[in-house]
Amino acid sequence: MTMQNERLIFITNDDSYLSKGFRAMVNLAKEFGRVIAIAPDRVQSGMSQAITINQPLFMRTVEQSEGVEIYAFSGTPVDCAKIAFDHFFANKRVDLVLSGINHGSNAAVNVMYSGTMGAAIEGSFYNVPSIGISLDDHDADADFEGAVEQGRKIIAQVLQSAETLPRPLCLNVNVPRCAREEIQGIRLCRQTRGFWREDFYARQDPHGRDYFWLTGAFQNAEPEAEDTDEWALAHKYVAVVPVQVDMTDYAMLRSLNGVIK
Amino acid sequence: MTMQNERLIFITNDDSYLSKGFRAMVNLAKEFGRVIAIAPDRVQSGMSQAITINQPLFMRTVEQSEGVEIYAFSGTPVDCAKIAFDHFFANKRVDLVLSGINHGSNAAVNVMYSGTMGAAIEGSFYNVPSIGISLDDHDADADFEGAVEQGRKIIAQVLQSAETLPRPLCLNVNVPRCAREEIQGIRLCRQTRGFWREDFYARQDPHGRDYFWLTGAFQNAEPEAEDTDEWALAHKYVAVVPVQVDMTDYAMLRSLNGVIK
Repeated sequence: MTMQNERLIFITNDDSYLSKGFRAMVNLAKEFGRVIAIAPDRVQSGMSQAITINQPLFMRTVEQSEGVEIYAFSGTPVDCAKIAFDHFFANKRVDLVLSGINHGSNAAVNVMYSGTMGAAIEGSFYNVPSIGISLDDHDADADFEGAVEQGRKIIAQVLQSAETLPRPLCLNVNVPRCAREEIQGIRLCRQTRGFWREDFYARQDPHGRDYFWLTGAFQNAEPEAEDTDEWALAHKYVAVVPVQVDMTDYAMLRSLNGVIK
Repeated sequence: MTMQNERLIFITNDDSYLSKGFRAMVNLAKEFGRVIAIAPDRVQSGMSQAITINQPLFMRTVEQSEGVEIYAFSGTPVDCAKIAFDHFFANKRVDLVLSGINHGSNAAVNVMYSGTMGAAIEGSFYNVPSIGISLDDHDADADFEGAVEQGRKIIAQVLQSAETLPRPLCLNVNVPRCAREEIQGIRLCRQTRGFWREDFYARQDPHGRDYFWLTGAFQNAEPEAEDTDEWALAHKYVAVVPVQVDMTDYAMLRSLNGVIK
């Protein structure tokens, strides 16, 4: 049954179409409309806003059932969003972009490294409300119940106000790792200041070659700031940060006056 | 001859250590101090802020000569910056990060897709002044003379004021494609608003499988705005945009008040 005026929801992620969080998102989105998902055919975590310039990309059909179409794409998360909007949806009205549900937090500066948020940001460039949802739990078998429940509320609120909210509209939603009933509520936040410091795991491979493996920890520069997304997560709130892409450092522009000439 | 207090300059890029622009940057940087470069071992254009989480990374020595060390790394541009600072430079004072010279403009929203700027941004997280330099010419054999000349001026100006300028300090420098003597000067700019719209090249491979290849064009939302980097490039100025990474949409935070709850 296809309803007239039924919503069309585009879904992607970075953990691939095989992840538990992706399936949770598809099931959640079905409550709100017809779903077309184009997701990476393999794990693309940490792919940021990366695009594939120098290679051809392949797509295959994974599922075509009542109200749900799922395709696996060989590109990055952003490639998935681009081919959806610039090729498949050329003449379709899309009502909502959802990315995730990601296995692992994308709070703070993680918004920049995350393929999930890369795709959500890209989706917002098409003037469609775009929501990336992440659960602060990297486990492949993580419990997405709380994230689904909170995501449902946020999606409903965004859809209800979609016509009046400005564009581009992109939300970075992070859900704490705790029992569903322990979640304290939803907080609008700003991105926490702080950076990752890495500790490269250095070993030798079976052929005697040195290798390095990235591992690190986020250094929160303002752990006490109650208006930040990291604070919210640490206190079992769902953190919602609206995201924009003007990266100009306006304060620095003033400092550089007369210095760069 | 190693001078006491000699500057240490870290270089990376996204076109790999084999590119002409990388070599131009190394030669330019040598004028300012000792150079240690860790650059991708293959082309990593469009890799944004991507990091390699699920694979080991390998490094090999390319060159160790008077004042210049060059290493090829199997990671992304950001991986190159991370392993430099978090592994090799752990106890060294680094004076400057240079990324590029990129073959192709990274003005406007390209700052988000660019591996060159991804690495420059990452470098700035270590409290070292960081400059990404790009030439608006994708040709593998592009003429970097003008970019070197303008880059030299900007590097000298940044180093001269390095102690008084705030941190993080990251500059996105884009040089127009024109004869060296046609360049009109250097302009401090903000990032131009606008997005890419892609036109996927769709064909069949020799085995009859459909493939897609990304190709597109930047849609400038404000071509007349004289304070933007695209305007500067179009008018043969060198565009310098300071870059920061708080992506919070503060105006949207206010719009969402009472909507998301």
